[in-house]
Amino acid sequence: MLAEFDLIRRYFMSSQEAATASNGVTLGCGDDATLLLPPAGQQLAVSVDTSVVNVHFPHDAPAFAVGHRALAVALSDLAAMGATSRWCWMALTLDQREFADDEATHAWLTDYARGFHALNQQHATGLVGGDVTSGALSIGVTVMGEVPVGEALTRSGAQAGDVIAVTGALGGGAGGLALWQRGERDLSHPLLSRYLLPQPRLAAGVALRGLATAALDISDGLLADLGHLREASQVGAVLDLDALPLADGLEDALGRNAALQAALCGGDDYELLVTLSADNVSEAQQRLAALGLSLTVIGRCRRTLGVSATDKTDISGYVGWQHFSGEAP
Amino acid sequence: MLAEFDLIRRYFMSSQEAATASNGVTLGCGDDATLLLPPAGQQLAVSVDTSVVNVHFPHDAPAFAVGHRALAVALSDLAAMGATSRWCWMALTLDQREFADDEATHAWLTDYARGFHALNQQHATGLVGGDVTSGALSIGVTVMGEVPVGEALTRSGAQAGDVIAVTGALGGGAGGLALWQRGERDLSHPLLSRYLLPQPRLAAGVALRGLATAALDISDGLLADLGHLREASQVGAVLDLDALPLADGLEDALGRNAALQAALCGGDDYELLVTLSADNVSEAQQRLAALGLSLTVIGRCRRTLGVSATDKTDISGYVGWQHFSGEAP
Repeated sequence: MLAEFDLIRRYFMSSQEAATASNGVTLGCGDDATLLLPPAGQQLAVSVDTSVVNVHFPHDAPAFAVGHRALAVALSDLAAMGATSRWCWMALTLDQREFADDEATHAWLTDYARGFHALNQQHATGLVGGDVTSGALSIGVTVMGEVPVGEALTRSGAQAGDVIAVTGALGGGAGGLALWQRGERDLSHPLLSRYLLPQPRLAAGVALRGLATAALDISDGLLADLGHLREASQVGAVLDLDALPLADGLEDALGRNAALQAALCGGDDYELLVTLSADNVSEAQQRLAALGLSLTVIGRCRRTLGVSATDKTDISGYVGWQHFSGEAP
Repeated sequence: MLAEFDLIRRYFMSSQEAATASNGVTLGCGDDATLLLPPAGQQLAVSVDTSVVNVHFPHDAPAFAVGHRALAVALSDLAAMGATSRWCWMALTLDQREFADDEATHAWLTDYARGFHALNQQHATGLVGGDVTSGALSIGVTVMGEVPVGEALTRSGAQAGDVIAVTGALGGGAGGLALWQRGERDLSHPLLSRYLLPQPRLAAGVALRGLATAALDISDGLLADLGHLREASQVGAVLDLDALPLADGLEDALGRNAALQAALCGGDDYELLVTLSADNVSEAQQRLAALGLSLTVIGRCRRTLGVSATDKTDISGYVGWQHFSGEAP
């Protein structure tokens, strides 16, 4: 069994050293704490996220996806603030006794680190510290980024009359999970990829600064996360269910009704849910189109609290989607 | 089962709100990320630490101690850098199914939050974000503090000729664990208290700025942590075993030989291990005395790598102390 220091050095140091060189970190992994010189005139945005085996991802998920996903869900919180990402810390809890032998441990860690690093590099995020300990597989990720003072996107700025919009497509996370539970294992399948390799919308969050009145990322499901936004902003909402952008292949895989339920309640999509003045929709769509991303208007905020559908569908019927819990549904 | 938001609000928000008011946090718990305005002219020191049930603490440890200890071990890393503590994030993984009923969950969380808060208040640290998820009990803590540019205590500054010193007393962590495993449950017992309620030496770390040439906190055991310091600084060490300050009651509880082994290899003491010029010892001792803390010289750094004892005792004989691993020894 590798000691913590050896393990960090072997699998995670090379990218850390590169990050140290490029990102103004005074002291990275290997001392008691990381030393950073924060940028002047910027706010720091910080988020922590824990991913637990059999709760947030299946025990037999590919290690590459486990590494990618643990980081992605944390970065997604920065995206939702309109912040950039600069640094991260990884607390890996790993039971090496779960592996048949050292070779299996090595293979898993190599693949895991590859997934974590690839996404880090994509977003120029430096892994600057961490912790490795023994126990049931779990990954705690702390991410830190920057946003100019006063420009962060919060949950509380939505106003009655604002339109409600989402980036990308919905339901892919839940659809991918359903496929995984049916035995599908080809990660090139778009729905599986949406579930196991979600893409944090960092560039979109930055592009929406100055336009979005409120934002959050869809992790618990559209209705649940819209509920958080409505509560923080003290507004109600009316949704056009026919306008919901469903993930490619979702209706084919699940049928119309379950597809709609996945989009409304499934979660794990990590798209941004934003509100903005109707006057700004076109500008926002253009900015996101330049990033290869759609922005779809799905409803409107109103003064009357609560949520309903434009076609009078009883939205309360779309509840009870079970997130992954280690059991097939 | 309480949802994450309700749980955070009910048990942890009151102290968070106080911290937000007092500490310049722009946005605390309840949005996607915390927004902070970092201080000018200071470096940020950041550390993450995970505490796992049956690995870092016994499953039947009092909840108050679990909360205190998870935060203490993280703060101890800031102390070892000579940094102050300002903010923290708590990622709590909790299996509510482990509790007999909601009342038992409530009692545990209340006591846990009390332990976490009390130590936070003692060190003026604001709980400004977190995450609650389901799984085997585990607490990830991210702490952030400040240190003036260029004044941080690292592991790499020790020079041949420097003396080696420790704050407080050693072996109490391991001694307390041994007592716990024998069935002792009275937390007012000094050794049990040392093990379950360790005190991070933040004030001592700040006081040693400008005097200590290197520092770290003793979590893995004196010999192991001295090894990290020797490696980072590229020095050897000679230790005076008779000078080791043993925790009160340790020899009575374990006998002389096991007490020495606990002090050398036991870990979990969270005292500071520092090196400094012999000329500065007296000044350092006076500063720490003002904090009610001793600083004991226990050896000296030398050019020749490796570690030995002044009385030629074979130090390699003092190895093999088993940290807590869920089994009685």
